[in-house]
Amino acid sequence: MKQSQLFTKTRKEAPAGEQSKNAQLLIRAGYIFKEMAGIYSYLPLGLRVLKNIENIIREEMNAVGWVEMQTSTLQNKDTREKTNRRSDEIVDTWFKTELKSWWQLGLSFTNEEAFAHILTDYVSSYKDLPIYLYDFKNIFRNEARAKSGIMRGREFYWKALYSFSKDEAQHQEFYEKMKIAYQNVFTRVGLGDQTFLTFASGGTFSEFSHEFQTLADIWEDTIYLDEVKKIAINKEVFNDEVLYKLGLDKSKLVEKKAVEVWNIFTLADKFSKPLKLTYKDENGADQDVFMGSYGIGISRLLGVIVELLSDGKGIILPDSIAPFKVHLLSLGTDEVVLTETQKIYQELESLWIEVLRDDRDFRAGEKFADSDLIGIPYRILVSPKTLESGKLELKNRKTGEVKMIEFGELRNTFI
Amino acid sequence: MKQSQLFTKTRKEAPAGEQSKNAQLLIRAGYIFKEMAGIYSYLPLGLRVLKNIENIIREEMNAVGWVEMQTSTLQNKDTREKTNRRSDEIVDTWFKTELKSWWQLGLSFTNEEAFAHILTDYVSSYKDLPIYLYDFKNIFRNEARAKSGIMRGREFYWKALYSFSKDEAQHQEFYEKMKIAYQNVFTRVGLGDQTFLTFASGGTFSEFSHEFQTLADIWEDTIYLDEVKKIAINKEVFNDEVLYKLGLDKSKLVEKKAVEVWNIFTLADKFSKPLKLTYKDENGADQDVFMGSYGIGISRLLGVIVELLSDGKGIILPDSIAPFKVHLLSLGTDEVVLTETQKIYQELESLWIEVLRDDRDFRAGEKFADSDLIGIPYRILVSPKTLESGKLELKNRKTGEVKMIEFGELRNTFI
Repeated sequence: MKQSQLFTKTRKEAPAGEQSKNAQLLIRAGYIFKEMAGIYSYLPLGLRVLKNIENIIREEMNAVGWVEMQTSTLQNKDTREKTNRRSDEIVDTWFKTELKSWWQLGLSFTNEEAFAHILTDYVSSYKDLPIYLYDFKNIFRNEARAKSGIMRGREFYWKALYSFSKDEAQHQEFYEKMKIAYQNVFTRVGLGDQTFLTFASGGTFSEFSHEFQTLADIWEDTIYLDEVKKIAINKEVFNDEVLYKLGLDKSKLVEKKAVEVWNIFTLADKFSKPLKLTYKDENGADQDVFMGSYGIGISRLLGVIVELLSDGKGIILPDSIAPFKVHLLSLGTDEVVLTETQKIYQELESLWIEVLRDDRDFRAGEKFADSDLIGIPYRILVSPKTLESGKLELKNRKTGEVKMIEFGELRNTFI
Repeated sequence: MKQSQLFTKTRKEAPAGEQSKNAQLLIRAGYIFKEMAGIYSYLPLGLRVLKNIENIIREEMNAVGWVEMQTSTLQNKDTREKTNRRSDEIVDTWFKTELKSWWQLGLSFTNEEAFAHILTDYVSSYKDLPIYLYDFKNIFRNEARAKSGIMRGREFYWKALYSFSKDEAQHQEFYEKMKIAYQNVFTRVGLGDQTFLTFASGGTFSEFSHEFQTLADIWEDTIYLDEVKKIAINKEVFNDEVLYKLGLDKSKLVEKKAVEVWNIFTLADKFSKPLKLTYKDENGADQDVFMGSYGIGISRLLGVIVELLSDGKGIILPDSIAPFKVHLLSLGTDEVVLTETQKIYQELESLWIEVLRDDRDFRAGEKFADSDLIGIPYRILVSPKTLESGKLELKNRKTGEVKMIEFGELRNTFI
């Protein structure tokens, strides 16, 4: 794609009032646009990254047998009344709206009711279970303060997953697969090394809940990590009894600051009972479906990645989610330079490598600064000087390494 | 994919109160779930079709140089006030909601303001134009009555496109490309033969607007079609003067019933002026950006397709948008049948052909009826009888044609 097709421009300053590092960088580089506090539009660069993350998650979920669908955003008040999650006293972050006939309806702020309600039409026997469903959609939460950029927005892009099992044993069996699937996701988006399964406080239905926590000093959760076993305990449940149960040695744990990027809830019959999502078991008796919840915020994940993977010059995105793999810059308007640049562009496109070609008539310094701010993994430079040497200049955004390569080396460099 | 993974089941009857043919069929076949009047969730089959249509449109738009982004669903009241589209008296179908600080905000019911507002940050010179942007998203309209299924919902999946040009000439030049791109879309989704460019009443800014109208006796628009020139006139502007202007001969026109599947609006400065979306022209003078709008409802398009392409047994989807290309059925639990079915399944998957394998332990009659209702283009049957003949039974859902083919012919049949 030509950069001139991309209407966005970089900016030196983030808008006044934007306090979060992730949104500041993403706005300056032209990935997102701030509509209001906690509400962002995704500009072409940002949407490409969201979709890349979405595809990675989709691949990992489909590999474990999940099936995708899409629940409506407008949700029925009746369904919420059954689970006692309608009134402002119970759920104080729900954006609500009205039909003309003055019935109230709400925007999805989570999806347990929507899924359980749909499944009452389809589940009747133990033979129908288990079912694993997910849904990529926008979620709306009326947060009183929204100061974390895209890490905690009033509108955010989310994947909701729910598992529907006949009992706890079937539920648990599946959970082990999910641990691996999620670790795969974190590895593929570039957070694998600093993201750990963490035991946190349970709820009504289980002793522990499970989180994946990503380490960094900037964040506020405290966890205790066993760096060999790669397991952590959230401070909220950290005591000798828990250590004993998990077989962890206190002397081997390191205190770390972290942020939660994913968690699992064992819902059991919390939603299936009020919504009458039941099935006939092998003996013909009615049983409540046993539910689990495994949501992950796509925009939150991008926010975490940007907070962690950036430097003073801008964003540094991993290959797997970057909007393009190569940023192709040419300097000057010399005919030979433009011809060579076009040749490289066509070569890369023919190899199915995604290229952003900076075809703008800007000064070299501006082009370099923009390229560093946007943070595409590889920058290729074509100039009268590089042409003189018969080579191209290749720069790695992450390591800063610069080397000269020949045109013929493009294929091996990127494939 | 195995059909047992698909939690949905077909049903003999549509829910009481559902009047539209499209929603009746789609609910019965398990493509959609009705949340409330005019609000539907997309079940796995339905989501696959929506995404197929979306991808066709995306390819055609990208080919003409459009760029994709995604505006937020929650929209600022201030922006709407500037264009005088906030109050219920002006826009009576807007779902509105509230922030805690009691500012009102709205859900997107159309996107002119959102796009124009974002572009004020990025457009300053004539060199920045033209810009062509689109956005796939859910749109919300508080329709007093919602009786047309997914053809006119309260929540629907839409692609908004807006062009931003420096003047009418630049705008018009682009419009010719859009006519071709949209005709490509209609052809690819199976409506090409009965969909025609139609002249309709203009607005403040142009003599005519342009629609694509799809023919069928069941619909209520009346158009006059020149079947040779493949151009039509909407009844609302049909008079001798217009005929003369368009160079059409009254005696060669045929009156037809039709439904609008797409239209274009020349917006000119209607939104750019109040939102101050201006640019400096070649002489340094401020000019309003000249806008055009080209939206298309994805769910509406699917509704039209289902209304048109169905028979007494169920839905008949074109190859290009069907959720799967092949429905693979086996009869009985005979070991040889199951092994042969698995072999065919693997062969088709290795050829990248999307297959739904009916692995359910159902009677033959039920499997056949479900297959016809769901309407996947090709059905392959494996049974003790077909195995005896050493062949497979291949049925074309659209023509009803049945023929016996050999395993070795699978590749040539589908590729």
